[in-house]
Amino acid sequence: MNNKLLIVGTMAYDAIETPFGKVEKILGGAATYIGLSASQFLVDSAIISVVGEDFDMQHLQLLKEKNLDLSGVEIVKGGETFFWSGRYNEDLNTRTTLETRLNVLENFNPIIPDQFRSPDIVVLGNLSPEVQIKALEQLKRSPTLIILDTMNFWMDHFRSKLDEVIKKVDVISINDEEARQLTGEHSLVKAAQLIHQLGPRYIIIKKGEHGALLFHDNEIFSAPALPLAEVFDPTGAGDSFAGGFAGYLTQTLDFSFNNMKSAVIYGSAMASFTVEKFGTDSLINCSVSSMANRIKAFKELTTFEIEF
Amino acid sequence: MNNKLLIVGTMAYDAIETPFGKVEKILGGAATYIGLSASQFLVDSAIISVVGEDFDMQHLQLLKEKNLDLSGVEIVKGGETFFWSGRYNEDLNTRTTLETRLNVLENFNPIIPDQFRSPDIVVLGNLSPEVQIKALEQLKRSPTLIILDTMNFWMDHFRSKLDEVIKKVDVISINDEEARQLTGEHSLVKAAQLIHQLGPRYIIIKKGEHGALLFHDNEIFSAPALPLAEVFDPTGAGDSFAGGFAGYLTQTLDFSFNNMKSAVIYGSAMASFTVEKFGTDSLINCSVSSMANRIKAFKELTTFEIEF
Repeated sequence: MNNKLLIVGTMAYDAIETPFGKVEKILGGAATYIGLSASQFLVDSAIISVVGEDFDMQHLQLLKEKNLDLSGVEIVKGGETFFWSGRYNEDLNTRTTLETRLNVLENFNPIIPDQFRSPDIVVLGNLSPEVQIKALEQLKRSPTLIILDTMNFWMDHFRSKLDEVIKKVDVISINDEEARQLTGEHSLVKAAQLIHQLGPRYIIIKKGEHGALLFHDNEIFSAPALPLAEVFDPTGAGDSFAGGFAGYLTQTLDFSFNNMKSAVIYGSAMASFTVEKFGTDSLINCSVSSMANRIKAFKELTTFEIEF
Repeated sequence: MNNKLLIVGTMAYDAIETPFGKVEKILGGAATYIGLSASQFLVDSAIISVVGEDFDMQHLQLLKEKNLDLSGVEIVKGGETFFWSGRYNEDLNTRTTLETRLNVLENFNPIIPDQFRSPDIVVLGNLSPEVQIKALEQLKRSPTLIILDTMNFWMDHFRSKLDEVIKKVDVISINDEEARQLTGEHSLVKAAQLIHQLGPRYIIIKKGEHGALLFHDNEIFSAPALPLAEVFDPTGAGDSFAGGFAGYLTQTLDFSFNNMKSAVIYGSAMASFTVEKFGTDSLINCSVSSMANRIKAFKELTTFEIEF
């Protein structure tokens, strides 16, 4: 039996416009990306989420085929699935949300099935802190690691509830602007120190095309993003990162800084796949050999030899 | 006898304001930073530049003590040294030029002393492309490597002259926005491919706090910037990078991609020293052991182990 990864997050339909094209209604959501990304590893994952009756059975089938347990995905009768639409600007670094329809997400009450109440690792995907807390309260024993992904919206409007969650987690994954917003500190090194004081032992600061930083005590690791000729659609990159990071750690259950570094590289590799195509297409078709090649590319990209 | 590095560039006085403090008139200029940075290596460097009669003899003395040959530095009688003043914004990533007085730089006619007309490596610091061409024309034999550092100003106003220089150089060092401006291409991977077609075999794209990328044929190397709790004054960071890069390559004269990677790391290390204090203070006091520690820090920052 594999180690268990519990994923709490959204499942959604997205409409996306980028300078390269447009899609009307494709599979999306944080839990979807996290789950598909984690499914690259030898783990037993379960998704806790909610969808509407409109959710395509083929999409559920697809996720099940990736060995994702969906017994904790509520299907609301007569409800509609969470919908997000957005447009990316020319540089792909900024985007405008065109529409957010919470739909069934509005009254989401997460229920964790019995067989997943003692997971090895939990990922709380970007979601209301209240839902995240509710999920954590159902666990029978403390997981070895809780990973939180969140965003500026929750900092703006639900800060005290978010602080409650942050206090309970071991790893937080946010982007550079969010780290600055959370702490009021421009230097990411100082921001990480302040976030550490809020709870998390490990702080991941994502920098988009500039990669990611991992902070722990006095140690820092810097992972580049893979320089790509074409970034096609950045949607889900951060969630794919979280999924790769969590999937690898669940498989290995080794939280030494060295192994956390490897997890960051696996996360970066998964994100690099995601941005190459619209939506989840790259993740779904990712193979063991393409993963190995990508890790090799990260190695070549970063390795240098200087001896003293 | 050491290998020879020829540095063509400005010497200046700077007035700088950052969120952390203010200085009225300190030693600056591209050639100054490049020279001080290169002086960390076993090389014989010469600076080709121009200063006014106001230039402090103690500053000339300081540079000579760092084994920099100043016989190609013209001292214009009655002239005033190039002066730049600028203010950095809160985030230190953007700055406003408050004043530029070209002074003696306006009529700068570079003269390379005989003993430096056959250097191993040339660095053309950020300067008018016309002056850069004039310097190259005086060389008796082709150097093994010509490195160009330039900026958006020359792209805006002297593009065709700049293109002439770019055609003649082996390495170009510019920042990400300049790479995009030079090529009209947002993707840095594609921009590097286009710049390669303009002449340079090696393209360095500097990304400030996000590090630097080195491109050569189909190979890419990504060097992070050292995450610092305090970036005190970014002035001269790019020049210090160029000096470390050129100094290390002049010492080794090995242009394999592997050794170019090491040169990028040495450049990044020198830049990381420069930003820690106002002006040239950190470079002047840099020791062999502090350099070794910093290279070690870069190694720890980037090394990960994943085997297949």
